[in-house]
Amino acid sequence: MKSKSRKVAIVGSGMVGSSCAYSMVNQAICDEIMMIDRTYDRAMAQALDLSHCMDFTGTRTKVYAGTSNDCAGMDVVILTAGANPKPGQTRLDVLDDAAVITKEIVTNIMAGGFDGIFVIAANPVDIVTYMVWKISGLPRHRIIGTGTSIDSSRLKTLLSDVFSIDPRSVNGYALGEHGESQFVAWSHVTIGGKPILQIMEQHRERFSQLDLEDIARKTKDAGWEIFTRKGSTHFGIGSALAYITRSILNDEHKIIAVSAILDGEYGLSEVCAGVPAIIGRDGIKELLELNLSSEEFEKFNASCGIIRTGIESLHLEDRV
Amino acid sequence: MKSKSRKVAIVGSGMVGSSCAYSMVNQAICDEIMMIDRTYDRAMAQALDLSHCMDFTGTRTKVYAGTSNDCAGMDVVILTAGANPKPGQTRLDVLDDAAVITKEIVTNIMAGGFDGIFVIAANPVDIVTYMVWKISGLPRHRIIGTGTSIDSSRLKTLLSDVFSIDPRSVNGYALGEHGESQFVAWSHVTIGGKPILQIMEQHRERFSQLDLEDIARKTKDAGWEIFTRKGSTHFGIGSALAYITRSILNDEHKIIAVSAILDGEYGLSEVCAGVPAIIGRDGIKELLELNLSSEEFEKFNASCGIIRTGIESLHLEDRV
Amino acid sequence: MKSKSRKVAIVGSGMVGSSCAYSMVNQAICDEIMMIDRTYDRAMAQALDLSHCMDFTGTRTKVYAGTSNDCAGMDVVILTAGANPKPGQTRLDVLDDAAVITKEIVTNIMAGGFDGIFVIAANPVDIVTYMVWKISGLPRHRIIGTGTSIDSSRLKTLLSDVFSIDPRSVNGYALGEHGESQFVAWSHVTIGGKPILQIMEQHRERFSQLDLEDIARKTKDAGWEIFTRKGSTHFGIGSALAYITRSILNDEHKIIAVSAILDGEYGLSEVCAGVPAIIGRDGIKELLELNLSSEEFEKFNASCGIIRTGIESLHLEDRV
Amino acid sequence: MKSKSRKVAIVGSGMVGSSCAYSMVNQAICDEIMMIDRTYDRAMAQALDLSHCMDFTGTRTKVYAGTSNDCAGMDVVILTAGANPKPGQTRLDVLDDAAVITKEIVTNIMAGGFDGIFVIAANPVDIVTYMVWKISGLPRHRIIGTGTSIDSSRLKTLLSDVFSIDPRSVNGYALGEHGESQFVAWSHVTIGGKPILQIMEQHRERFSQLDLEDIARKTKDAGWEIFTRKGSTHFGIGSALAYITRSILNDEHKIIAVSAILDGEYGLSEVCAGVPAIIGRDGIKELLELNLSSEEFEKFNASCGIIRTGIESLHLEDRV
Repeated sequence: MKSKSRKVAIVGSGMVGSSCAYSMVNQAICDEIMMIDRTYDRAMAQALDLSHCMDFTGTRTKVYAGTSNDCAGMDVVILTAGANPKPGQTRLDVLDDAAVITKEIVTNIMAGGFDGIFVIAANPVDIVTYMVWKISGLPRHRIIGTGTSIDSSRLKTLLSDVFSIDPRSVNGYALGEHGESQFVAWSHVTIGGKPILQIMEQHRERFSQLDLEDIARKTKDAGWEIFTRKGSTHFGIGSALAYITRSILNDEHKIIAVSAILDGEYGLSEVCAGVPAIIGRDGIKELLELNLSSEEFEKFNASCGIIRTGIESLHLEDRV
Repeated sequence: MKSKSRKVAIVGSGMVGSSCAYSMVNQAICDEIMMIDRTYDRAMAQALDLSHCMDFTGTRTKVYAGTSNDCAGMDVVILTAGANPKPGQTRLDVLDDAAVITKEIVTNIMAGGFDGIFVIAANPVDIVTYMVWKISGLPRHRIIGTGTSIDSSRLKTLLSDVFSIDPRSVNGYALGEHGESQFVAWSHVTIGGKPILQIMEQHRERFSQLDLEDIARKTKDAGWEIFTRKGSTHFGIGSALAYITRSILNDEHKIIAVSAILDGEYGLSEVCAGVPAIIGRDGIKELLELNLSSEEFEKFNASCGIIRTGIESLHLEDRV
Repeated sequence: MKSKSRKVAIVGSGMVGSSCAYSMVNQAICDEIMMIDRTYDRAMAQALDLSHCMDFTGTRTKVYAGTSNDCAGMDVVILTAGANPKPGQTRLDVLDDAAVITKEIVTNIMAGGFDGIFVIAANPVDIVTYMVWKISGLPRHRIIGTGTSIDSSRLKTLLSDVFSIDPRSVNGYALGEHGESQFVAWSHVTIGGKPILQIMEQHRERFSQLDLEDIARKTKDAGWEIFTRKGSTHFGIGSALAYITRSILNDEHKIIAVSAILDGEYGLSEVCAGVPAIIGRDGIKELLELNLSSEEFEKFNASCGIIRTGIESLHLEDRV
Repeated sequence: MKSKSRKVAIVGSGMVGSSCAYSMVNQAICDEIMMIDRTYDRAMAQALDLSHCMDFTGTRTKVYAGTSNDCAGMDVVILTAGANPKPGQTRLDVLDDAAVITKEIVTNIMAGGFDGIFVIAANPVDIVTYMVWKISGLPRHRIIGTGTSIDSSRLKTLLSDVFSIDPRSVNGYALGEHGESQFVAWSHVTIGGKPILQIMEQHRERFSQLDLEDIARKTKDAGWEIFTRKGSTHFGIGSALAYITRSILNDEHKIIAVSAILDGEYGLSEVCAGVPAIIGRDGIKELLELNLSSEEFEKFNASCGIIRTGIESLHLEDRV
């Protein structure tokens, strides 16, 4: 029988990358994980630590260290390595650093012969995802940013708590930028298939305390709430990465809100933003175009405008 | 640490009961399963066969045989034992047989001191579920029929196939009778949160071959298609039972279309029919009232009328 | 990303074949299952019934019907179809029927271009496994019979019960024929790595009631105990098949007692019997030769002699 | 149905504590996790981050923050908070700090009404485990240190790699101190039930490069190798904690090498060291006394002597 080993490389072996690997080991999502890091010793240490979980889980995932040149046989490369803001840096300075780092990494990966799917969590994720597309030269459907997948999960966790319902029985998305300008598409949030707006209208008294604005704000700020208290957010995003990767490897065709490069969908192009997408073996099979309300559509346009401004400030045409 | 063993009894050790047990063993859903059967030797053989799976699975579920008097400590009793049509019997004859069998079993179980949740798959499931309520004297929220859970799953499997989407990204329900008069509530079927009716309207050409009537018919007839070819349907329904039971034992609050005794919901009472319900530790926490279209609402009323006629034909007041 | 779908065909869609499929669906062991049966309608019905489990499990295993000519792209073909004793038939008559059926099926499968691993559960399993080797012309390491895997599991279930220990902390094998002449290799049974013979010697009083002969007898007779009570044994063996298949598909290199064609191991050749083997992507990677006690070795030889007699009675040289 | 929620508190929300929680969330091991930390905000941030995994996993584990006084209803309290060496501190200084911290935490937990099982990973784990016993006043079987569980897992990972065998088919233990004086009990290491010493003797040439001393050294040094490269080891130990906790909550009776307070076993008392134990609902059901070789027995005695010296240096009699 020919090898059908499912192989994933994780570039960046810090908190996000290693949490993602740990989640994949615990859930037996793939057969091999290659940890990559600017500091090779750190990748090696994470691989070693992760390999000691084997006896305690049901899996035999092999975890080892490698370099960005070794990605030829990988099915998926997960990008978590990025630029961290240094004191005194402006947002544009950080963007510039991110561009430099991303170019170096992606160039190496492609030079090594990689021909799979990129899944990107490095921030600012929508812009980095766009960069990876331009730098890699791969077709757009093979470039997936985590985008608002994590924000959508936070939304569902919050609603699941308020309504006391299993999060798998809640559906809904945060859309647009994984950042300040994101918004919740309330027109498409459903509880057990029933629109939340209908539920609230029919049960005004019962849900009189429920403030959707407040839920949307908490959804957006959750990452910040965590970050200010522990200096990093990595478990939620690590699980999001594992979830997207599993939908690719198993060709599951799950619909997940990810950062995708638009090509006419929602009337936009040449920009990358969080929208629901069907995720399978070939990456993004198709985007799902929701019938947003006019107010939501304006928010989406505004959010994409902000992402586009960020992209343009990079002058990628001079970098690629 | 005090025992928190999760215990399930399965009454009826035939194809449905044993498939349900097998699914629960494979998924490690509970700690103990007691197999019960009119023929004690059959229950014992199923328990023995199932116990040999332990080494091959990740679980240590204990499976053993017992009797309907031994259900005092059970969290859930699953009822699969029912009446099978004999040659020459009319539908009413079968109903009468079912009533006799159900009364005997439920009376025994209650006499043994059972104080948990009933989950019923015995057919005609809506009517048997109603009977169990009347006979057991338990509050209605602790009586759950599999109802249209299996039909809803068949619907999702069909749509998942047509749209090439993970069934977990499809939501929708078959409602009413688990039988001929059931219908699909198309107004609440969503793909990734987007209403299917919108999708079809926006993409008329692409989905011009898609015939919702045909899907609804296949949903309803799937059981029969299987039955005529192999004389029994047990895997789908076994999994439905395991799924409902897991939502109870783990207090998951999943929303599942089950057969529930209505108490004013959908404007009806004293009848039992397939509707979406929140399933947790106490059984049915609440029913979800969908805003059915007027056409759907008529179908629901008609379906409930048929179930009610069946119930009335039993003259339960003379039996309980 | 190129397809790495893991595909399994199951020949014989009766109780054993369908239970195996159900176990694989519940555990998400592969991506596709093709059900095959002499009666195509039965295969189709099983596939349909199994496909309705999707919504209730975490998987998206596709289950469909096919024929033995369609196995070209399969990674594993599981053989459960065999000869059932008819009234008045002798053991040799049954053997002859099995030979005819196996030849027809395996010839078809090979003609269709199959180039993977055979896993065989059809009885008498040791002899049928040998036949499949001769008929298919595949190298011996790609032919695996379930052999004493199920007997070993029954042994562990029994010991796990007696010692009140998780079966995964018990190790031990039944060896030789999957039939009357099998025996337990007590010299290699360990509880938490400690030999059971040592435990019993050190704690004579505590385990004075423990009768190893009795455990060995119950191990051997368990299948019969089930069969006489329900006419079939399928859950344990279905799980064994799923377990072996998973070790192949995931290249796990688990050590499992299976029916393997000996090639000098244990001093024997040209016979097929239950021995511990390392199971991975290429089938049997290597057999583990235990240092049996002389008494055990005699039993093994005797058991293999009985299997060999069965094989010779078939005059395979005239059939292949 | 009365609540059978399985509740675990984790004291210490740093890398080890949060990795353990993440592993338990990914594997759906319990229903509720309470994160506790000296810095309440850190516990809250970890809980929040972990709660966002829900939508991406199959579970509905509730994760929230609490304090050591809130442990009354917990089934298991996991202790990961300990003393970190400060520059210039001797080993005895660290021990003293550990004693002060442990006393404060355990006193609070017991004052809050805790009546479950302690699982301890705080280092030096053998000594802290002993302290928890003395301070809590709970019976010894309810006090479990991770001890050499992680070293044993590292041993199995190494052997699994050398022999190319699934780690679940390898059995073996590192015993004694979770520290420098630990040793591998080679007399009880088996591959598929066959003693490794026999395998090496029978296949001298094939395994001529295999150096057991080297494997034992790598087993012992693995933690240090990781620590020097990334400043912490948390994934392996987090998984070990999850594994032990699962065996308690599910009453699995797995045999795991943990740090247990000896009471005559191995001829020793009033000391705590890594030995194989049967782990179930009541904690340690029984210790497994291996027939160590005389050389191994000497090593075990020496290792326990070192632990005992550490314990005595604390003068617990003046502290409790």
